[in-house]
Amino acid sequence: MGKRKHLTFGAMIHGVGYGWDDWRHPDAVTDAGVNFKFYKEQAHIAESGKFDFAFIADSVYITEKSTPHYLNRFEPFTILSALAAVTSHIGLVATVTVSYSEPFTLARQLASLDHVSGGRAGWNVVTTFLEGTAGNYSKQDHLAHDVRYRLADEFLDVTRGLWDSWEDDAFIRDKQSGVFFDPEKLHKLNHKGEFFSVKGPLNIARSKQGQPVIFQAGQSEDGRNFAAKHAEAIFAGHDNLEESKQYYRDVKRRAAGFGRSPESISILPGISPIIGLTEEEAERKYQEKVNLVSIENALTALGRPFNYFDFSKFPLDEPFPDLGELGSNAMQSGTERIKRLAKEENLTLRQVALRLATPRSIFVGTPEKIADTIQQWFEEEAADGFIISPGIPSTLKDFVELVVPILQERGLYRQDYEHDTLRGHLGLEVPVNRNRKEKAVL
Amino acid sequence: MGKRKHLTFGAMIHGVGYGWDDWRHPDAVTDAGVNFKFYKEQAHIAESGKFDFAFIADSVYITEKSTPHYLNRFEPFTILSALAAVTSHIGLVATVTVSYSEPFTLARQLASLDHVSGGRAGWNVVTTFLEGTAGNYSKQDHLAHDVRYRLADEFLDVTRGLWDSWEDDAFIRDKQSGVFFDPEKLHKLNHKGEFFSVKGPLNIARSKQGQPVIFQAGQSEDGRNFAAKHAEAIFAGHDNLEESKQYYRDVKRRAAGFGRSPESISILPGISPIIGLTEEEAERKYQEKVNLVSIENALTALGRPFNYFDFSKFPLDEPFPDLGELGSNAMQSGTERIKRLAKEENLTLRQVALRLATPRSIFVGTPEKIADTIQQWFEEEAADGFIISPGIPSTLKDFVELVVPILQERGLYRQDYEHDTLRGHLGLEVPVNRNRKEKAVL
Repeated sequence: MGKRKHLTFGAMIHGVGYGWDDWRHPDAVTDAGVNFKFYKEQAHIAESGKFDFAFIADSVYITEKSTPHYLNRFEPFTILSALAAVTSHIGLVATVTVSYSEPFTLARQLASLDHVSGGRAGWNVVTTFLEGTAGNYSKQDHLAHDVRYRLADEFLDVTRGLWDSWEDDAFIRDKQSGVFFDPEKLHKLNHKGEFFSVKGPLNIARSKQGQPVIFQAGQSEDGRNFAAKHAEAIFAGHDNLEESKQYYRDVKRRAAGFGRSPESISILPGISPIIGLTEEEAERKYQEKVNLVSIENALTALGRPFNYFDFSKFPLDEPFPDLGELGSNAMQSGTERIKRLAKEENLTLRQVALRLATPRSIFVGTPEKIADTIQQWFEEEAADGFIISPGIPSTLKDFVELVVPILQERGLYRQDYEHDTLRGHLGLEVPVNRNRKEKAVL
Repeated sequence: MGKRKHLTFGAMIHGVGYGWDDWRHPDAVTDAGVNFKFYKEQAHIAESGKFDFAFIADSVYITEKSTPHYLNRFEPFTILSALAAVTSHIGLVATVTVSYSEPFTLARQLASLDHVSGGRAGWNVVTTFLEGTAGNYSKQDHLAHDVRYRLADEFLDVTRGLWDSWEDDAFIRDKQSGVFFDPEKLHKLNHKGEFFSVKGPLNIARSKQGQPVIFQAGQSEDGRNFAAKHAEAIFAGHDNLEESKQYYRDVKRRAAGFGRSPESISILPGISPIIGLTEEEAERKYQEKVNLVSIENALTALGRPFNYFDFSKFPLDEPFPDLGELGSNAMQSGTERIKRLAKEENLTLRQVALRLATPRSIFVGTPEKIADTIQQWFEEEAADGFIISPGIPSTLKDFVELVVPILQERGLYRQDYEHDTLRGHLGLEVPVNRNRKEKAVL
């Protein structure tokens, strides 16, 4: 596989929006998190824009302090399976945790989504950072950060092994002879490891794309290595060109260290463009969003990556407090980034909270300006594409109607789907079944 | 709620069919188990027949001796969510095991299916009888029969508690005031029991029907009590009028013992009608099915409820072997029924195996004859309705096109849907949230 010829785009479909107060936007659908009509419309918009995939973020634990979109929302496998039935080409990526799932069930549900959709499933592998999750799963303790990544490694190995239970030509289905399958092409896994013992085989065949595509979003040291070793697409978190180029080079270099071709990983920063026909209109739309945010909610949201740390006890207009090691076992990369931002720019607590609640990204402006920035990031190897996250309710529609046509005209993006599997869209090969025996030379 | 006014019908959609050799039928779609087009067509047929629900059976463990339909098939939540998106009224019932699931995940996936479908989800609670399943879930041992039912009891209590995390009017979503929800109407479960510790709350609201409908299929002593205590619909296993009347009376009596109204449980035997325009045509269709069956496959299938016991070591044409307690910790009711059948009718091993492989049910005949039998069972209180299981590929279509209109003419069955939730179809009330406080009298 050579260098990818065009940009990759994913659409994060995310209920009432990512920010605390997004649901208060005049155009927001306030029950969007459990509104199938809303999800279907967003998926259709993304598919009309020839997007590579729709992406469902997820987490499991909530408290009364959780941002509204976490409180009441679809579970990824169910909503994506429903979307599979009403779409035809777009990939369908589910975020699912390894720390609170069983490999057999997860492998099976992903494979089943892959069959329902005709080979369009992807899995965003996450390890879960919120300690409170343990309390929902009859567990005493939440695993430590490094142990979670060791578990993730084994979990993924088991899952991939289960997906290869059946060789691609195992099912003969010959009505005349009565042979349904070739028992030589059915394989038990017999895995015994540190965390899991799984015999197999899985009770579902491989799909048209062989295995679901592996996504990852980890930005910590452990997360980067995991991504470089396993991921086929990365949901990256940076929105600054230089930082993103550095991250891009770092992960591709690490991937080469694991013996992988750098082209076999797509690096896709998540962005929330706010698009206006003029700069003024874009700025007005951005301010409309900013005006929704209260400092109280911004502080609570800031606490979440630190495992719901209570920031309200600190003075708002003094320098960001020294938190020591706090957060290192929670969302490690996220908390480190917040601390770094506060230190480098010498910000107060209020400034940090508001900056994170309403990031003033460079993806605010006219369609041409946003297309230019995207082109620059792509050509300068800061990104292989982007995941469009909801900023305001019209984000995805505006992007598809106004930005996509410019990128198509410039030859940076497909005019139409050329494949019908997610692997096809991403230029990835169908993985060889680990149990396939080479044909004997006669 | 008074006596139900009309029959209830469910459609079991089941890949290549239930019998070992069903896939060899000339009209069988041999990859049906993972063919979404097939499932969609069957669901549309059932919905055109105004069926109450589509039913997906399930089990998790396979061996190279498993009947073909077990080997390669959709997982229930994924296929039902996909069907939710392409249907509008029919209920969607998923079989899921309590022995190898987490209550939080299961409660969430069911609730999410319930939202995707607009209040049409049901859960067939099973405990799993195949010991080998433990090997797929990092467990040393499969639980004993009675322990499985104790666990099921606790599991269901936790699941129902999680479903009631949010009171129905908890979400205020007032853009002006910025109040998204009322924290007084969000409830933690804080369950600590023998098998599970689950704090909650669940991150999804109740659906239009309040909670998914509980189905159950247990026929053993433990199973009957569990069903009488919890089930709102029962997938019953008998196909003989007297036995079914006895079972019907027994379960409704037990339900009354748990303080429940007998009308709040629908008893629905599974039947596989084979329908011909004449008796001769029906008989020919039945024989066509019988001719597909080999004694080898019939013996292997016979072994499954005994946890894949190998019957091939016994002589075929001598009396059915004395098996002692074998099977009592596997599918207890199923194995007892087989032993009883062999003893009462003094059958050989070959006769038992073939009888079970191609049951000569009374539901073979002309549409009028089948409608007569259904009417008799309904009026004599042997059944509140039936689950139509696939016998031959045309079973469901024939039933909907030929039998349903007769039952409609006789006023025994709805002409059109009168509700859009599964509870609505079954005449069940929306359950009151366990956390709802009575309004104070002013």
